[in-house]
Amino acid sequence: MSIFNDVESSVRSYCRSFPTTFERASGYRMWDQTGREYLDFFAGAGTLNYGHNPDDMKWALIRYLTNDGVAHGLDMHTGAKARFLERFKEVILEPRDMDHRVLFPGPTGTNAVETAVKAARLTKGRDKIVSFTNAFHGMTLGSLSLTGNSMKREGAGMPLGGDVIRMPFCGYMDDEMDTIDYFERTLEDPGSGIDLPAAVIVETIQGEGGLNVATKEWLQRLQGICRKHDMLLIADDIQVGCGRTGKFFSFEDAGIKPDIICLSKSISGFGLPMAIVLLAPECDVFEPGQHNGTFRGNNLAFVTATQALERWATKDFEQHVHSMAKAMKSKLETIIDDFPGLKPYHKGRGMMQGIAVEPAELAGEISAAAFERGMLIETAGAHDEVVKLLPPLILDAEGLDKGMSILRESFAEVAARHGLDEESGNVVSLKKSAS
Amino acid sequence: MSIFNDVESSVRSYCRSFPTTFERASGYRMWDQTGREYLDFFAGAGTLNYGHNPDDMKWALIRYLTNDGVAHGLDMHTGAKARFLERFKEVILEPRDMDHRVLFPGPTGTNAVETAVKAARLTKGRDKIVSFTNAFHGMTLGSLSLTGNSMKREGAGMPLGGDVIRMPFCGYMDDEMDTIDYFERTLEDPGSGIDLPAAVIVETIQGEGGLNVATKEWLQRLQGICRKHDMLLIADDIQVGCGRTGKFFSFEDAGIKPDIICLSKSISGFGLPMAIVLLAPECDVFEPGQHNGTFRGNNLAFVTATQALERWATKDFEQHVHSMAKAMKSKLETIIDDFPGLKPYHKGRGMMQGIAVEPAELAGEISAAAFERGMLIETAGAHDEVVKLLPPLILDAEGLDKGMSILRESFAEVAARHGLDEESGNVVSLKKSAS
Amino acid sequence: MSIFNDVESSVRSYCRSFPTTFERASGYRMWDQTGREYLDFFAGAGTLNYGHNPDDMKWALIRYLTNDGVAHGLDMHTGAKARFLERFKEVILEPRDMDHRVLFPGPTGTNAVETAVKAARLTKGRDKIVSFTNAFHGMTLGSLSLTGNSMKREGAGMPLGGDVIRMPFCGYMDDEMDTIDYFERTLEDPGSGIDLPAAVIVETIQGEGGLNVATKEWLQRLQGICRKHDMLLIADDIQVGCGRTGKFFSFEDAGIKPDIICLSKSISGFGLPMAIVLLAPECDVFEPGQHNGTFRGNNLAFVTATQALERWATKDFEQHVHSMAKAMKSKLETIIDDFPGLKPYHKGRGMMQGIAVEPAELAGEISAAAFERGMLIETAGAHDEVVKLLPPLILDAEGLDKGMSILRESFAEVAARHGLDEESGNVVSLKKSAS
Amino acid sequence: MSIFNDVESSVRSYCRSFPTTFERASGYRMWDQTGREYLDFFAGAGTLNYGHNPDDMKWALIRYLTNDGVAHGLDMHTGAKARFLERFKEVILEPRDMDHRVLFPGPTGTNAVETAVKAARLTKGRDKIVSFTNAFHGMTLGSLSLTGNSMKREGAGMPLGGDVIRMPFCGYMDDEMDTIDYFERTLEDPGSGIDLPAAVIVETIQGEGGLNVATKEWLQRLQGICRKHDMLLIADDIQVGCGRTGKFFSFEDAGIKPDIICLSKSISGFGLPMAIVLLAPECDVFEPGQHNGTFRGNNLAFVTATQALERWATKDFEQHVHSMAKAMKSKLETIIDDFPGLKPYHKGRGMMQGIAVEPAELAGEISAAAFERGMLIETAGAHDEVVKLLPPLILDAEGLDKGMSILRESFAEVAARHGLDEESGNVVSLKKSAS
Repeated sequence: MSIFNDVESSVRSYCRSFPTTFERASGYRMWDQTGREYLDFFAGAGTLNYGHNPDDMKWALIRYLTNDGVAHGLDMHTGAKARFLERFKEVILEPRDMDHRVLFPGPTGTNAVETAVKAARLTKGRDKIVSFTNAFHGMTLGSLSLTGNSMKREGAGMPLGGDVIRMPFCGYMDDEMDTIDYFERTLEDPGSGIDLPAAVIVETIQGEGGLNVATKEWLQRLQGICRKHDMLLIADDIQVGCGRTGKFFSFEDAGIKPDIICLSKSISGFGLPMAIVLLAPECDVFEPGQHNGTFRGNNLAFVTATQALERWATKDFEQHVHSMAKAMKSKLETIIDDFPGLKPYHKGRGMMQGIAVEPAELAGEISAAAFERGMLIETAGAHDEVVKLLPPLILDAEGLDKGMSILRESFAEVAARHGLDEESGNVVSLKKSAS
Repeated sequence: MSIFNDVESSVRSYCRSFPTTFERASGYRMWDQTGREYLDFFAGAGTLNYGHNPDDMKWALIRYLTNDGVAHGLDMHTGAKARFLERFKEVILEPRDMDHRVLFPGPTGTNAVETAVKAARLTKGRDKIVSFTNAFHGMTLGSLSLTGNSMKREGAGMPLGGDVIRMPFCGYMDDEMDTIDYFERTLEDPGSGIDLPAAVIVETIQGEGGLNVATKEWLQRLQGICRKHDMLLIADDIQVGCGRTGKFFSFEDAGIKPDIICLSKSISGFGLPMAIVLLAPECDVFEPGQHNGTFRGNNLAFVTATQALERWATKDFEQHVHSMAKAMKSKLETIIDDFPGLKPYHKGRGMMQGIAVEPAELAGEISAAAFERGMLIETAGAHDEVVKLLPPLILDAEGLDKGMSILRESFAEVAARHGLDEESGNVVSLKKSAS
Repeated sequence: MSIFNDVESSVRSYCRSFPTTFERASGYRMWDQTGREYLDFFAGAGTLNYGHNPDDMKWALIRYLTNDGVAHGLDMHTGAKARFLERFKEVILEPRDMDHRVLFPGPTGTNAVETAVKAARLTKGRDKIVSFTNAFHGMTLGSLSLTGNSMKREGAGMPLGGDVIRMPFCGYMDDEMDTIDYFERTLEDPGSGIDLPAAVIVETIQGEGGLNVATKEWLQRLQGICRKHDMLLIADDIQVGCGRTGKFFSFEDAGIKPDIICLSKSISGFGLPMAIVLLAPECDVFEPGQHNGTFRGNNLAFVTATQALERWATKDFEQHVHSMAKAMKSKLETIIDDFPGLKPYHKGRGMMQGIAVEPAELAGEISAAAFERGMLIETAGAHDEVVKLLPPLILDAEGLDKGMSILRESFAEVAARHGLDEESGNVVSLKKSAS
Repeated sequence: MSIFNDVESSVRSYCRSFPTTFERASGYRMWDQTGREYLDFFAGAGTLNYGHNPDDMKWALIRYLTNDGVAHGLDMHTGAKARFLERFKEVILEPRDMDHRVLFPGPTGTNAVETAVKAARLTKGRDKIVSFTNAFHGMTLGSLSLTGNSMKREGAGMPLGGDVIRMPFCGYMDDEMDTIDYFERTLEDPGSGIDLPAAVIVETIQGEGGLNVATKEWLQRLQGICRKHDMLLIADDIQVGCGRTGKFFSFEDAGIKPDIICLSKSISGFGLPMAIVLLAPECDVFEPGQHNGTFRGNNLAFVTATQALERWATKDFEQHVHSMAKAMKSKLETIIDDFPGLKPYHKGRGMMQGIAVEPAELAGEISAAAFERGMLIETAGAHDEVVKLLPPLILDAEGLDKGMSILRESFAEVAARHGLDEESGNVVSLKKSAS
């Protein structure tokens, strides 16, 4: 690994949690250079919803390459792009009665967010954007201003936030405060000092923020005040979309229809850089060329993305995700029951669940213990207090069982290490032998 | 083409200049869906320095895919990344006596610029960045603030520039003003109102800005005042680097050593999204994870990028570029001589040359006339007054001749259309028949 | 009045509420050019706490002028300034065990606030300042950013607020939300997106904001989180200080000790422009000349201010204010009881009380009705829904009775005009005849 | 002087240059508490153009006070204000064919500048304001952003300048650069990165900046590009207006007509806090109350200001100023000739002249030497390198002679102290004995 220490910037991070050098990957499995196998419950932070190297996409890609298909096309028309747009319209937009237009920004999530926010400001002619506590929207200057995490914000090296209004997310103060009531009060009060925003940007589940779930009712009320006060609603579905919660869009369950939607991560299906911004017609306001970017036309990604959409032509995939999510939840709950010493509680929904523990540092220890046992899992939350499971959606029962066993063992090891399993010691060992 | 009109955002732009749907590409040639061939003197706006689908890279990619190599790796260690870093160190860094560290930002140019600027501010603890007139650095909020173009700036939908100090580029006022003298005066004068910047960001040739060339002496003096006044020097080599001027870095000719260097576009060699930021050791200041991004580990790009570096292991490629650039310049000069009615003058250097014409609109007409003849060429400059040639560096004599013929014909057509060839009418027709 | 229409800017405002031309004034009475007398329950928006032209100050001023005392002294030492500082130390600082240093900013409230905020940022090296909903801190750019009122904010002609964090004031959501809990949560949560502020600026009673009173407990808790999280506490005592609530400082009742205190309005005692900023020693961080201003040395104001301080050498004046405030409250409550149709409720404390009515426009009508009867009263609040009484503190029983009669008649007239006195009609008329 | 050390903020500054405690003042003379007399060539930094305690104003003030005239009137109509407006219209506006409206901001220069800039932004709907190198416009946040001095800017404790575009003042690069050409180029070039400003703010002579004089031609060209590019022209005549250059407005000589004009300092004539903003009718855009301030109605200042205007009813005063200025210039030139060792050169015009010396520190020494001899003179310039003379305009031949003698002696002392009189030693001593 010396070349990394020798030459790569110290900013690198996940490689510190997963200290090995990976070489191959397939489905929900990865292998390092020594041939050791890992169970991937991390999925490229939500980029590999369909698993590593899915066969249909891989061969579509190889075929395209062999034929000298256009690899890089800026925003020129290409056959690969046309085929993606046609299928996206048929499979995603039309069945949902959406008349959004598709904008290809630079092929990353933060590019999508920056584009969404520019379009919102330009549409409304106002500068302020509302973002929520513990939001994560990316690391370029515009997106970072919208992001909550203080360590990441300090990376800007300058004060942030002149154009961002921070509001408390759903449940931020538990039952002590109705966060939508508060938000609305500031809009209705001409003395609030909160200037009318152009838009509100929201993740329906805050992934990096700790798997905080916005309720359906909260999302509906949020959309309601956006409509009432002439603000646009932007859904950042970069991590939580593309089927992560079962439906293609995470907000479908709530029955809302955001004006602007950001997709990236799993949109290409294969982990290739790609992003799209869906714009309600009245938000499609840029002049030609007013937003651009060199890699908007990553045609290899269009090839795999088109293939990936086939999962959404029927209801089968959605149902698979729902049933896996249900199974995962039930297994997580037994772990929660069995390790009360870690003060665990459940977080998230869909295939984006986890367990918050206390003290927060133990989440990192659990992740490390899991890695030693051959499983990749991330932590999340303001204090990195949540053990966050983000497996590929194509996970099967065998993979889930194996992963959950490793997770249980990792909880047990960490609990024991800190003497936090005493109270429930017997129960734990009994259950473990039974599993 | 109806799907594009039907579904894609109106922001799309190059497809309006090149109104067809492309399907295949190889070397400096592209083919549309009808099989028509085009000469590509545009090269993905500088992303395809090695041409479309170079054979060695293509097969390295297919091999990697077939073996289920890791496609997407965030910032985890992978074999593909290790191989890139090793070769980059051997072929690029060590021979140039550079001890810069390699940071992988999100895989686009604007991500690289945002990262560079964050690192600069964090290193120096100051917020201001100097950027030049007619600079182009990208379209996310931080980069857009640094960009000059007013139409693109207005796309932000909000006032920009609080943290940017604009300075005149080399030759901005022709001989009327020494722009480095002026810059330095503002630094030395405690009453100038120009707060000490953290860094200066510069393109050695302003590509989008109109092929404005910074002289060697100007760059050396710029580095001089950066050193003297404790400001970092950031080279944005995204379009002008990776061999575009002959040397790997565009600033090598000037003998300067920027503290931070942004590379993207042609760094992957194949048009795949990738970017790197080179940081002098004292600028490698981010904490682990303080800057991140989902697609930092686009391993397919690492595979092609590693292959692309082989062009730089010897001097042959560099010499090829120099000789092509020289030939291109001499051919452009004959066109300039032959169409005085368009008030043409030469711009740029290396394989990034062009002709400014007057009135500015004629540049677009020339580009359109060339497209009709089967050649892609872009325009650039504040008024889009420059016909800009950016062919793949692998262009050969045959391709150059063919391209230059088309360019000449296009000039002739546009000059004739506007009655601007009268004065020199005979000369033109004589030369044309001779060519 | 034609010269005003002819030449003065349309921004003028109070002259529209009180449409006459005033010539003379004494105590709590004013006379216009026709000799008509007015009862002043407005006191220069809190600038004339000691009434118009108090005799002792007037003659001190005439004596000083006659002797050719220095009128304008910048920040040079003068005898008049020395005498003010000595007496301020003896009468105000020492008895309260305060070691604050006195800074003379430009002689207006907004200058004091701007200075306070600069000192706070410089002391802490951070840019953000917390300000509250419905705050009013002044109209220059820094102060206006801290101010809540949207109409006034729009006067900036540009987006405001990049360096201001808005928090809900005491009772902003009634009982629905503990606003200090919420504030503290954002400070303790590293994902809140609320950067650690340099300081919090607060009015203990929001005068312009509608006579919103911060409770003692709330102020104590606010000071508590400031201390805990290393933020400075700035008290804007410009309108509410100088005895308006009985004590010299409005925050004395809460037992807190702000790090920085802004005084203006009644500090000169005579209505002459003057302001001071009190800085805890660790906040006295400016270099000599780093903040300046032409009229810092308004020595005529120092002369009257020194005289005014004599009111605070004993407890008599404070006791007078308390008893008048108590009497005013009881009279206001009978009005509230008698006009339920206006949905009135009591606001404020000390000699800064009022009645909120519904619909909001009626407050303006009541003020106008009072003016017709010869009394000046202002309205306040986000919707100008509060009839705000701010009489000189030297008001006596006769003046109070007369003012309250006029107020009652004005309520009655407006209630009758809108048919809002029906329910309680008899009671009203009976009480009126008795008064 | 212990009370100042004991209690006053360390920010105080002029008292350090003039270390005594002043008590009385009349005309161009001041006396300290010990009775020592000083010649005032400083005039409250330009506030006392008519000298200290001019008799007519003093007695008008005493009469007004004795009659219980309204002292403080917010923006209510008063007789004193009406009389000022009538006379201002007759004596200033009408003879100059100006239809500007008069806005009373808070009574300080920085309030006037903040108001001007708000009105300009609101009028044009743009946020950027152009300000010049070495400008001084005040110390509140908006004005400070426009100010050049780095020490003063750092006092903000936060980054400044997001909405300010800095341009080089007349002669900033001597003959090397035509600063208006450069400014205009950035306006005409859509790639300059300089967003179209709402307005330009300029001092015709930069007082604090070092007596830098804008030529008539430069001012005319500046007005020209303002008109051409739809930018407002704001004249900050706070220090340089009210007759300092002979004419009432400093820009009259150049024949330009700014859209917005800021006056303060000497407008009240007596050193009392007062400021006005003159707005061309199309800039009078505030809604009633959209800009306000407690001390807009400092009626004592209106009384003296009305009296002061009588100086402008005939040409006598203007001619007196011109002849004094001419005499001052000729005397300064002999000093310049006689002390070549200090590399002196003349700066300024009108009654605002001075001598720049080298090294810069000597200016402070000369000021100190003059103070020891009983004369107050300020220094100015980015390095405080200019000995700046700003005597009251009522200076007479006797006062000028006396002041110039002291100045010559101070130059001689400082030159001798540093051995800088050697070269021209004989000449100096000869001339000195002759003077």
